[in-house]
Amino acid sequence: MAVNLKEPDALLPIKGIRLASVSAGIKKNNAQDFVLIALAENSQCAATFTLNKFCAAPVTLAKKHLQAKTPRYLLINSGNANAGTGEQGMQDALSCCSSVAEHTHCQIEQVLPFSTGVIGENLPLKKIQAAIPYVYSQLSEDNWLDAGRGIMTTDTKLKGVSRQISLQGKTISVTGLSKGSGMIQPDMATMLSYIATDAAINKGLLQHCLVSAVDLSFNSITVDSDTSTNDACVLMATGQAGNPVIEEKNADYLALCDVVNEVCLVLAQAVIRDAEGATKFVTLQINSAKSLEDARQVAYTVAHSPLVKTALFASDPNWGRILAAVGRSGVEFEIDKIEIYLGDVCIVSKGGRDVGYTEAQGQKVMNQSEIDIRIELNNGNQSARIWTSDLSYEYVKINSEYRS
Amino acid sequence: MAVNLKEPDALLPIKGIRLASVSAGIKKNNAQDFVLIALAENSQCAATFTLNKFCAAPVTLAKKHLQAKTPRYLLINSGNANAGTGEQGMQDALSCCSSVAEHTHCQIEQVLPFSTGVIGENLPLKKIQAAIPYVYSQLSEDNWLDAGRGIMTTDTKLKGVSRQISLQGKTISVTGLSKGSGMIQPDMATMLSYIATDAAINKGLLQHCLVSAVDLSFNSITVDSDTSTNDACVLMATGQAGNPVIEEKNADYLALCDVVNEVCLVLAQAVIRDAEGATKFVTLQINSAKSLEDARQVAYTVAHSPLVKTALFASDPNWGRILAAVGRSGVEFEIDKIEIYLGDVCIVSKGGRDVGYTEAQGQKVMNQSEIDIRIELNNGNQSARIWTSDLSYEYVKINSEYRS
Repeated sequence: MAVNLKEPDALLPIKGIRLASVSAGIKKNNAQDFVLIALAENSQCAATFTLNKFCAAPVTLAKKHLQAKTPRYLLINSGNANAGTGEQGMQDALSCCSSVAEHTHCQIEQVLPFSTGVIGENLPLKKIQAAIPYVYSQLSEDNWLDAGRGIMTTDTKLKGVSRQISLQGKTISVTGLSKGSGMIQPDMATMLSYIATDAAINKGLLQHCLVSAVDLSFNSITVDSDTSTNDACVLMATGQAGNPVIEEKNADYLALCDVVNEVCLVLAQAVIRDAEGATKFVTLQINSAKSLEDARQVAYTVAHSPLVKTALFASDPNWGRILAAVGRSGVEFEIDKIEIYLGDVCIVSKGGRDVGYTEAQGQKVMNQSEIDIRIELNNGNQSARIWTSDLSYEYVKINSEYRS
Repeated sequence: MAVNLKEPDALLPIKGIRLASVSAGIKKNNAQDFVLIALAENSQCAATFTLNKFCAAPVTLAKKHLQAKTPRYLLINSGNANAGTGEQGMQDALSCCSSVAEHTHCQIEQVLPFSTGVIGENLPLKKIQAAIPYVYSQLSEDNWLDAGRGIMTTDTKLKGVSRQISLQGKTISVTGLSKGSGMIQPDMATMLSYIATDAAINKGLLQHCLVSAVDLSFNSITVDSDTSTNDACVLMATGQAGNPVIEEKNADYLALCDVVNEVCLVLAQAVIRDAEGATKFVTLQINSAKSLEDARQVAYTVAHSPLVKTALFASDPNWGRILAAVGRSGVEFEIDKIEIYLGDVCIVSKGGRDVGYTEAQGQKVMNQSEIDIRIELNNGNQSARIWTSDLSYEYVKINSEYRS
């Protein structure tokens, strides 16, 4: 049911990044569920993680390892989140890292573990350990599409994108993957996303670049307000493109940020296009707010309203529900000043239905698969833009049958 | 689909309160949609209203009239909320009150208007005005059941309850009605609820009594996090029971509060039992929190999680989703200390699945139509209890087809 989302035909390899995806038997039906990403020596790595207090064991361990060493391997399994698994979960995550370290002759802190899937079940450790030699033997620069498939859970489409820019006469490539479809309201991070570039850049700036990109992309989407226990977004830079190392916020840095922003935005929007049960891709633009927080609060209140989401599913221009959600957002504003637009159609002004509005105009916008809702608070000069999906029968079906 | 909710066979009349319900042609199919409640002279009246900034015209006007005068008439229409209707909406609400005042020879400020139904359409004023003489002619003390039916919108069951107590040898009756099924997260008030007693009590204490009862009942329920534009809860006291007027917080006051609390709780729970598409009635009890705010924040985060709600619908003991919701609630706690119970079954302790837990135990609780979820934060001594419903196909169906 993904909304206007096409899988990529190809993704650009990134010099210094090798990947492989195999089936370790965690998912049913021999589906790919086990991915290894190898970073060349001297690569840099930045990451953001979920703020959920019940974060999964691999999240805790990946954060610790990332602080201690520069990673050489990322180990990702789908089908099991290793979350809510207590002390055993931490032991299992450590054992996975240790097996990779042993097999590849690196230090255990150079391995970052990631898991995604059902919460609360112990990791099938033996299956994972048994698959390590095989996945290692399959590493290649050309496996981005396979890796994208290997990290999927309820996703119906593989999500990946590549971009190129030129820095100081050198071609820089950026390729990113992400997975995610439900339990999506990323908070300082995202579901799982892996982005790599061959640009040369120092670690501090790489982290800056990632955090600002994530803020405008993965931190600006919501399917169902549920922040996952396993969210993580990783940006790797191998430095093998030959550009002068980016050591300050110069033009090269800004150009790299632009392309990383774009890759993150395409991936984040892909998550919404493939949101569980989605039939609509909705952009919420809140303008002229007193503060960014106000703008985001209005945006998320509308985006999370089950009544707005079911009206979107029904293609029903039931603008009263949008108005009611804005009204309960807790944000201060003057009712008479607010304007609400569906596409280019003004539906609300002066505290009620706009005098020029006709149902036919609203219906025309609502019939589209991509819908823009714009709210002018006329109360300041701050803006926020977020993306969300509708609430359909299929969402309920997917989430009431997920474990059965 | 209401969960274990039976309509009342009878409701006690309240001396000094007369009611009538007729069809004014606002709803389709000649359904009852127009209710008049008349209060005897010297009655007192307390009320709480929605905090939604986009509150409906009748809410604004009812608040204003209530401050100016003691009401003699409550005029309630269902089928049209007169919300988001701007200046025209206010004119229409005023015209309704003025027509009642004229016909009954009272002052316009002695009439309180209430509306519930679709947002954003103008009130069919002529139909309403035409129905006033007829509804007035039908006023009787015995019409509580009819009035309960006349205020319904998407409700599938009439919601009403009566209780009696004795104060100083006098029998005191309390009868309450409410309507509500979706767009339910009342905030300082509720959908629509009308409660009357023949007790004698002064106005200040009556308001106190209502506010504290509402806090533990209507302000502790949620269907879909959507606070309505039209919420209102009214408590009327006619003083015709013959008890000494309650002028201070004495034993009589506390006894009356107890019975009003009970009536409000039964009505609020009836709203959840009849929540749109509900197949489960869920009690969330949060204990040992650092503050009441923390306890309520955890409770509402779990209650609003679409993933928890779909798991409840599926009778799936997917406790990982409860744990993930607690983790993203924003409340500070120590993961290792938290315990989560499904009914009497401990599902989470020490940061993960309780060692004694088996899926069969969880399944047994989840199969019930009434489910208790208890979360011990072990972080303080504050508690909160709220009630909610599940998220079913039927919820999506009702809300995507409501206007068609």
